[in-house]
Amino acid sequence: MTATKLAIVGVGKIARDQHIPAIAADPAFELAATVSGSGGVEGVENFATVDALLEARPDVTALSLCMPPVPRFAAAFAAIANGRHVMLEKPPGATVAEVLTLDGLARQTGVSLFATWHSRYAAGVEPAREWLADKPIRRVRVDWKEDVRKWHPGQAWIWQPGGLGVFDPGINALSILTEIMPLPLHLSGAELTFPENRETPIAADLTFTGPDGIDATAGFDWRQEGGEIWQIEVETDQGTLRLESGGARLTIDGTDRPLEDDGEYPGLYRRFATLLADGGSDVDLAPLIHVADAFMLGRRVTTDAFHD
Amino acid sequence: MTATKLAIVGVGKIARDQHIPAIAADPAFELAATVSGSGGVEGVENFATVDALLEARPDVTALSLCMPPVPRFAAAFAAIANGRHVMLEKPPGATVAEVLTLDGLARQTGVSLFATWHSRYAAGVEPAREWLADKPIRRVRVDWKEDVRKWHPGQAWIWQPGGLGVFDPGINALSILTEIMPLPLHLSGAELTFPENRETPIAADLTFTGPDGIDATAGFDWRQEGGEIWQIEVETDQGTLRLESGGARLTIDGTDRPLEDDGEYPGLYRRFATLLADGGSDVDLAPLIHVADAFMLGRRVTTDAFHD
Repeated sequence: MTATKLAIVGVGKIARDQHIPAIAADPAFELAATVSGSGGVEGVENFATVDALLEARPDVTALSLCMPPVPRFAAAFAAIANGRHVMLEKPPGATVAEVLTLDGLARQTGVSLFATWHSRYAAGVEPAREWLADKPIRRVRVDWKEDVRKWHPGQAWIWQPGGLGVFDPGINALSILTEIMPLPLHLSGAELTFPENRETPIAADLTFTGPDGIDATAGFDWRQEGGEIWQIEVETDQGTLRLESGGARLTIDGTDRPLEDDGEYPGLYRRFATLLADGGSDVDLAPLIHVADAFMLGRRVTTDAFHD
Repeated sequence: MTATKLAIVGVGKIARDQHIPAIAADPAFELAATVSGSGGVEGVENFATVDALLEARPDVTALSLCMPPVPRFAAAFAAIANGRHVMLEKPPGATVAEVLTLDGLARQTGVSLFATWHSRYAAGVEPAREWLADKPIRRVRVDWKEDVRKWHPGQAWIWQPGGLGVFDPGINALSILTEIMPLPLHLSGAELTFPENRETPIAADLTFTGPDGIDATAGFDWRQEGGEIWQIEVETDQGTLRLESGGARLTIDGTDRPLEDDGEYPGLYRRFATLLADGGSDVDLAPLIHVADAFMLGRRVTTDAFHD
C-alpha cells in the first residue's frame, strides 16, 4: 500500500500533541507538507497559505485542518474544490450552514470529507454505545469541567465570537452523548454564563429531553480547579453506566470494564484511511447543532471578568 | 374528494388572521376541531389539550400547530406518534435538533410532516428564484424592519429564551433568501442587539458569505417606525432584482413584474394537501439553522430597555 501524502494546516497545540504523532505511527499516511504562518515541522515542506500548497503540491491528496473553526471554511472549501480529501478537527466549522455547504461540495466533487469528533474514539465509547443500545434509560448526567488556564493557555480565539468558549471542550461530551444514546435528544433549556469581558461562555448548564421524556442534564465549566472531571453517567433499568476521564474509562455499577485503548487520534486516522479507501464521507453535525441550539435557546447570565 | 379533517392547535393571532380563513377557502380541508386554552372557534369542537383531541377524535387525521415554538415539540411528537399528519407554523421548533427528531419519527410512522415557511409562498418568490437561477450574483442586501409594538402586540413569548426576538420576523427573510439563492450561503459574522431587560434581540446585523465570495448582508430591526420595510435586493451581472413588501412585489431594474397573488397561507395549505396525497414530508431547516448560527457566532451588544 502506498501511503497517502497528507498536509496539516495549522500547526498549533493540537497538531503537535496529537495529529503529528498519530500520522507518524500510521503507515497509511505520510506527513508530506504543512501550512503554518508560525513555523512548521522539521524536515517537512511548509507553505504560508493553503492556496500555495494546493498550487505547488498536487501529490498531496489529503489535508487535515487543525486551525481554529472561524478560518476553517475558506481552507476547506479551496481544498475540496481542488479535489483534495479533507479531515476537519472539531468543531468542524464556525457555523452549521458552512459545514453543510462543504458536505454538498464534497459530494459534487467526489472527495471524502471527515468531520472528526476525537472523543468518540476514546476507548470506552463504543462499548458504552453497545451496552446502552437495548436498555431503557432513566436519567443522564454529564459533567465536563476543566481549568481553562491549563487546557487552553493563550488561545485567544476561544473567547472570540465563533470560538464557542466552554463549548469547545463541552462539544466533546456532546459528541460522546450523541454517539452512545439509543434515542435522539434535544435541548429544552440552557443557561450560559459569560464573563463580563468575554464574548463566549465560561460555563453552561443544559437540560435535554427526548422522545420518551428522558431526564438528561449537563454541566460544563471552565473554572474547575484541582483536576478535571470529564464524565457521563447513564442510569438504566439494568444498572448505571459511567464513562470517566473523557471516555477512557468505563464502569457498570462501579465495576471497571476492560478496554482496548488504541488512542483517539490514531482511531481518527484509521477511520480517515477507511473513508479514502471506500470513497465515502463522515459528517455528523449533531454535536454542533446542540451547541448552536444552546446559544439560540439559552438564557444568558453575566459573571465576573475572566483574566488569563 | 373527501376533505381532510384538520385541527388547529393554538388559536392565537396567526391562526385567526391566516390559518382559519385559508382552511375555510380550501376544499381539501375541513376545520374539525381546535385545541386552545383560551377559547376556540364558533361551531367547532374545542379541546383543552392535544392528548384529549387525539383520544377523542381519531377522524382528525391532520393537525396544524400554531402555538409558539417552545411548547410545539411535545404536541407535534404526540400527534406524529399517534399517526397524524402535522403542519408546523414557522419557526418549526425552539431547536434544530427537535425538528430533526420529529422528521425522523414522521419517516418511521409514515406520516407527512410539513415545516412551513409562509413567506416562501409570497407571490414574487418563485419568479425571483427562477430569474436568479442562472445569473452570477454580485451583492445581496436584506432589510427586514418593522415596529414590534404593531406586529407583535402582547406576545410575551417572543422576548423569552427560544422566542427568537427580531429573528421571528427575520426568519421570514431568511426563508425567502434560502429559497431564491442559487448557491448556499453561510454566516460569517453577526451582531445581535439585546435590550437590557429582554432575553432575545431587538435588532440583528448579519453578514453572509458563499462559495464564490458573494457579499451578502442583512439588517433586522424591530424599532422601525412609520411603515415596515421587508425587502431583499439582489444585484447580478444582468440587473438588480428587488423583492418588496415581504415578497408580494417583484421588480427587475425598477420595473414591476406582473404577479399572480394567491396568498401565502392558501399556498401553504395547497402544499400540505399535495404532501398528504403523495405521502411525503417537506422539512427544510436552512432558515432555522441560519438563526441558530447567528446566536452561536454573533457578537452581543446591549441597548436600552424595551417596554411594550
